[in-house]
Amino acid sequence: MPKQPKTAVSPTRVEDYAEWYQQVVRVSDLAERSPVRGCMVIKPWGYALWENIVRELDDMFKETGVQNAYFPLFIPLSFLEKEAEHVEGFAKECAVVTHHRLEKGPDGLVPAGELTEPLVVRPTSETIIGDSFSKWVRSYRDLPLLINQWANVVRWEMRTRIFLRTSEFLWQEGHTAHATAEEAIKRTEVMLDVYAKLAETHLAMPVIKGRKSAAERFPGAVDTLCIESMMQDRKALQAGTSHFLGQNFAKASDIRFHSPQETEEYAWTTSWGASTRLIGGIIMSHGDDDGIILPPRVASAHVVLMPIIKKSETEAEVMAFTESLAKELKDQHYHHRRLRVEIDNRNIGGRGWDWIKKGIPVRVEIGPRDIAENSVYMGRRDKGHREKTAMKREQFVREITHILDDIQQTLFERALTFRKENTIFIDESKLFYDFFTSKNQEKPEIHGGFAHSHWCGSEGCESKIKDDLSVTIRCIPSDAPPEEGKCICCGKSSDTRVIFAKAY
Amino acid sequence: MPKQPKTAVSPTRVEDYAEWYQQVVRVSDLAERSPVRGCMVIKPWGYALWENIVRELDDMFKETGVQNAYFPLFIPLSFLEKEAEHVEGFAKECAVVTHHRLEKGPDGLVPAGELTEPLVVRPTSETIIGDSFSKWVRSYRDLPLLINQWANVVRWEMRTRIFLRTSEFLWQEGHTAHATAEEAIKRTEVMLDVYAKLAETHLAMPVIKGRKSAAERFPGAVDTLCIESMMQDRKALQAGTSHFLGQNFAKASDIRFHSPQETEEYAWTTSWGASTRLIGGIIMSHGDDDGIILPPRVASAHVVLMPIIKKSETEAEVMAFTESLAKELKDQHYHHRRLRVEIDNRNIGGRGWDWIKKGIPVRVEIGPRDIAENSVYMGRRDKGHREKTAMKREQFVREITHILDDIQQTLFERALTFRKENTIFIDESKLFYDFFTSKNQEKPEIHGGFAHSHWCGSEGCESKIKDDLSVTIRCIPSDAPPEEGKCICCGKSSDTRVIFAKAY
Repeated sequence: MPKQPKTAVSPTRVEDYAEWYQQVVRVSDLAERSPVRGCMVIKPWGYALWENIVRELDDMFKETGVQNAYFPLFIPLSFLEKEAEHVEGFAKECAVVTHHRLEKGPDGLVPAGELTEPLVVRPTSETIIGDSFSKWVRSYRDLPLLINQWANVVRWEMRTRIFLRTSEFLWQEGHTAHATAEEAIKRTEVMLDVYAKLAETHLAMPVIKGRKSAAERFPGAVDTLCIESMMQDRKALQAGTSHFLGQNFAKASDIRFHSPQETEEYAWTTSWGASTRLIGGIIMSHGDDDGIILPPRVASAHVVLMPIIKKSETEAEVMAFTESLAKELKDQHYHHRRLRVEIDNRNIGGRGWDWIKKGIPVRVEIGPRDIAENSVYMGRRDKGHREKTAMKREQFVREITHILDDIQQTLFERALTFRKENTIFIDESKLFYDFFTSKNQEKPEIHGGFAHSHWCGSEGCESKIKDDLSVTIRCIPSDAPPEEGKCICCGKSSDTRVIFAKAY
Repeated sequence: MPKQPKTAVSPTRVEDYAEWYQQVVRVSDLAERSPVRGCMVIKPWGYALWENIVRELDDMFKETGVQNAYFPLFIPLSFLEKEAEHVEGFAKECAVVTHHRLEKGPDGLVPAGELTEPLVVRPTSETIIGDSFSKWVRSYRDLPLLINQWANVVRWEMRTRIFLRTSEFLWQEGHTAHATAEEAIKRTEVMLDVYAKLAETHLAMPVIKGRKSAAERFPGAVDTLCIESMMQDRKALQAGTSHFLGQNFAKASDIRFHSPQETEEYAWTTSWGASTRLIGGIIMSHGDDDGIILPPRVASAHVVLMPIIKKSETEAEVMAFTESLAKELKDQHYHHRRLRVEIDNRNIGGRGWDWIKKGIPVRVEIGPRDIAENSVYMGRRDKGHREKTAMKREQFVREITHILDDIQQTLFERALTFRKENTIFIDESKLFYDFFTSKNQEKPEIHGGFAHSHWCGSEGCESKIKDDLSVTIRCIPSDAPPEEGKCICCGKSSDTRVIFAKAY
């Protein structure tokens, strides 16, 4: 077999996808494991990416009338118990605060001051926010109530993976209350559209919108909508969810209002969330064997300028050119935000590779020769690392936003093509099983892809497929046309196809 | 005695200052108590204020080269114990996680899955961030390391008051590491200047910069710098602190680097923080007996437009005028941010009072008569509620940013005048004791004010004054000139005055 070309990340995706992911997280300088079990440290380069995602999402929320607020980190155990399915869903992964001080024991400090009621560190906030809603809502005039919270949450996971599944993560959770079921349902759809727009427009991640099967719903929800995206190992990543909670949580938290007809009614509520998991999605949608590739719209920085200083007599000139170019770029806007520009004047080998691994969209080298010709030497992260272009400085400044848009578009189209190539309509059980089990010498980690197949709607068939193949129903796509068919598992009649895949 | 004029807040500041504070928090719709002991719910109007404070502070941090990151919520007990003074300072107020799931017991769910090592919910993050720093720092080339985290922290307080002292609060904590003590000390000063600028320029709160006495230092710090502001009850509020930690935490967390001389050295570290407590400071600096007064630079919104709709035939016209005016205003910038405009078209009595209580800087009424004259009827929150001005629409649009600046300036000057009027230089012990104990029939809650007096530097004198009067040394002002004098407590010689006051 021919020797693999040298890559910045080892192993490559083909060699060991799971380990490739961990290595990309490391070499891209996004985050690292912490000494606290299952918790991560988000490093500056990763946090800047998150800040940009937050800003875009927050603006979109506010455009739909949502307001931010903040609720307690701790939830009294009795609150969590108010909704039976809900507590059932989270009981196994709750961090529990039982004491409120430390005292000297024989072998050092020990917990003391036991609480009369244990407090759960929020895994999600329906019940504690529901308590506030029950006070804020009196009349139909107080509705709709559209609240979002940016917060950390804790779900004690046994097997963790940075960004994808961590014991603590950052997210937003929206919570709304409405006078009618119709209005609440409409809100879950509006927020799903916001998530889809964030994913496709800003993260360059094509998504499929749909609804979950009963087995995959949020604990306590009547209906869970989701967006699902295909990663490069052909597994699905759920990138955002929006839940119609019916009156379940309104009844649990006693959120009632006087209707225009003077009757007293329970409100209809929704909740919806997206998290730092999206960063894992970016890595697995766009990363290659040289590291992450950041979508320009949310990139931690857009351009790095690397002055080439070989002789001390040219240093001042090169730095002056670099700094004036940086200023000129920073004065420009890219989709309503200022261009984010870094200068890397470290005089070390491998400097360019550092930025490739970190996934910055555009790298620029500036040497005395370039300055003599008033030009720059530019590399794009979506192209090969040797493929660089000399451009006149004015042209580069004029075209940089177009270049960024072009990279954004390229990433999206690549991911969409990849998804299309790995999506299949299957109507025969044997083909279905083959699709998810076939081995391939070159690519040992094959997860099939997205299979559009018929499903009769029974939990039995769903769980058989899950047990046999570790494949789940990712969603019933919103745009699936009605179509007569037979369940891929039991052969009974079905009126729509669903998407089966392995999932994160 | 003449009857008090009717006010929106009852009791007034003079009648019962502490209760006035709680009532302002309530009527201004900023926040409320939660069912979780000592924790608050920050409502949308309060959270928007916090978001604006965050934005200003974050921009200022980044201008000084600071990068944001995120570290775990939980700190292993063994980490906290690494710095002896530090853990001593926080042991009495730590929320402790001891279990990681819930199980069915005979009377409902009970904590299960006991952790081998308890986890403390961060009261501050020196030790957990120090662990990361110990991995990130190898060489002097890695320094300085300038990191900030926006986060929630928990300090289990026995007596809580919303914004001022809550078990959970939101804050930022900056953590830096340097190669030299001088550079670290310089950083603590730079960050103190950032806090002073935030307070004075954005919050309209005049502050005094200084350093804490040893007794008032952050647990584990070598030196604590602070800004202190006078509230309307003449008590001091510490509005931000910046700590020089020497090598104490570097030794505890093993943050070492190779110097240019090839020796291995411990780094010099700093930390600095400001929190949602600042909102309490805004309330008590500017609030009056009608509610809060928001400083325009950080106000949740700048202008509310209130269309007056008395007849249905004029409704469309009035609303069209209102909406076009809102759009025109929103297109304007006020100190690099867009103008924040609310429309309140509720047809209810007391609408104007709601906005007075919420402290919006400018209220505008728009009725058919105003429209006929192409004018608006404007009230400023820094003036009496009856004092309103008719202005041509064009003039209002042209002048709104100047009006906001003028309100900002008025608030600052009022607070500065108040502080000056209640600041005194005292050299005699009896006068000092009188200053902090004198009773006044009209104002029962008298806390003296700021007393600039000499102090010999002994902890004995400091604690005697604290025991006798509940008065503490707020700071040794940065700009205090050297001056010979005698300690206000023991009469021994002193070379500088310090500021004594009661404090929050």
